[in-house]
Amino acid sequence: MSRAKELTKQLLRQFVDSFDTILFDCDGVLWQSNDVISKTPALIAKLRDMGKQPLFVTNNSTKSRRQYMEKFAKLGFKVSENEIFCTAYLAAIYLRNILNFQGKAYLIGSPGMQEEFKLFDINYTGTGPDPVTGEVEDWVKIPLDPEVTAVVVGFDRDLSMRKLTKGATYLQDPKMPFIATNTDSCLPIKDSQFLIPGTGSIVSAVETAAGRDALVLGKPHKFMVDLIKEKFTLEPRRTVMVGDRLNTDIQLGKNADLHTLLVLTGVSKLSDVDSNLESSDPTDRECIPDYYIESLTKLTEYLSDF
Amino acid sequence: MSRAKELTKQLLRQFVDSFDTILFDCDGVLWQSNDVISKTPALIAKLRDMGKQPLFVTNNSTKSRRQYMEKFAKLGFKVSENEIFCTAYLAAIYLRNILNFQGKAYLIGSPGMQEEFKLFDINYTGTGPDPVTGEVEDWVKIPLDPEVTAVVVGFDRDLSMRKLTKGATYLQDPKMPFIATNTDSCLPIKDSQFLIPGTGSIVSAVETAAGRDALVLGKPHKFMVDLIKEKFTLEPRRTVMVGDRLNTDIQLGKNADLHTLLVLTGVSKLSDVDSNLESSDPTDRECIPDYYIESLTKLTEYLSDF
Repeated sequence: MSRAKELTKQLLRQFVDSFDTILFDCDGVLWQSNDVISKTPALIAKLRDMGKQPLFVTNNSTKSRRQYMEKFAKLGFKVSENEIFCTAYLAAIYLRNILNFQGKAYLIGSPGMQEEFKLFDINYTGTGPDPVTGEVEDWVKIPLDPEVTAVVVGFDRDLSMRKLTKGATYLQDPKMPFIATNTDSCLPIKDSQFLIPGTGSIVSAVETAAGRDALVLGKPHKFMVDLIKEKFTLEPRRTVMVGDRLNTDIQLGKNADLHTLLVLTGVSKLSDVDSNLESSDPTDRECIPDYYIESLTKLTEYLSDF
Repeated sequence: MSRAKELTKQLLRQFVDSFDTILFDCDGVLWQSNDVISKTPALIAKLRDMGKQPLFVTNNSTKSRRQYMEKFAKLGFKVSENEIFCTAYLAAIYLRNILNFQGKAYLIGSPGMQEEFKLFDINYTGTGPDPVTGEVEDWVKIPLDPEVTAVVVGFDRDLSMRKLTKGATYLQDPKMPFIATNTDSCLPIKDSQFLIPGTGSIVSAVETAAGRDALVLGKPHKFMVDLIKEKFTLEPRRTVMVGDRLNTDIQLGKNADLHTLLVLTGVSKLSDVDSNLESSDPTDRECIPDYYIESLTKLTEYLSDF
């Protein structure tokens, strides 16, 4: 493996000719929290004009596809709902299509997940605040729901010991499916001194208590790409994955045999690419993007002459 | 390694002659939640009569030594406070004696930890309920305390995303000490279908978010035994560790070169010993107790003829 190449204006023709489909991570790539990264709506429009198919693949489990549509519209993007692949949707479709889900999901998750579950007629319980009461000995008097047939974990702002207790308790049944939307360790927050734990932090807590590993649906796992293939033509060697994180976006590209472009407007830095090159872990050493670019703003500027 | 020997009446003399000091885990060994395991107070008294030194070593971080004294007294044990080594105390003494602590600890923990911290003049912040408010973007407006100079994690019934956010944020400073009382994955709850997450579950969540590993003070780490040696004569080959968990109690015995006795009134089963024997992990394969016994009730009965 050699170091990633900078995507310069000189390399643009070669890059553009290499793909028909382009997958974009969203936060840290097209926007940072609620601020659009300059000119990225024009980039998406330009790519469509060039006959490219943009698709949007995000590990963020807090929003439904409908809520993403609203966010895209608000920030000036023209996107259709079937181009959006978020992990709230992935979880619902996994339960419905892969597990042929019956019963009820115990959901440590978000309103966005509830919305997708409703669309797929998946019953769920467990959402909203559920704080502990009484002493630890009293927690074991919590009524359990006998209809629960899966535990699904996503980002949950209301995480509590009571939720962890219920999740771990249901998971004592070794046949109970245990599904996680994603395992991102933290959320990218623009210009902040804060580190906000991601779904990965919550999943770790449940996994440790339950003594079991979750099945993870989000990037870097290939399920996202398999799902896209059911709806769109996706030829791996004619597809590029654009993202800001090596261990999710770029790793998905490697796992699914896609081309990869790292942008430096989010979590991973160029020094992280160097660290990966020198890592003792072979998975890290392979996780090197084909290209990197400072930002998609720059890519838009390059493409304006095309 | 061979399978553990059952501690029968025939082996009793050999066992008794092998130690001067006997370390007891508490929950699952001397009691189960709030119920004493029959005859264990008489066992402790008998051992004292025989000239043995009993000591009490627990990973439970929810109680101070004073609170443990109350629990021992209530259940009929005669124990002195300096014989109790609990992880709330370990955390306080580690900060005071090893770190020469200045500043303030950000404490994800219990009232028992607060009590021990006060005894050692350790300032702390962060205890009690601290639920999230507003949207994720608002969480980054939480005021941080510039005096915080360590993050200490124990069992916290009030765990919340806001606490995880603060802990992970302080830990972005690579020089910030990150201390965990213990990493037990769950609490032993008698006759319960519930699995209550232990401190290990909380520690995993913080470690994942922060991308750092905590320094763990409790069993199986040797710090507990090192601390005992400062207060009592403890000759490892004349000491036995009695516990209900292979990966904490028995592993501490192995790490500190003690004799070990597994009781079957708590978490680990005899089948877990067999699993360890067959494990591909060499640490597991070494973690086999010298002896096992159904319960300390039985040991008390055997000793009554002595």
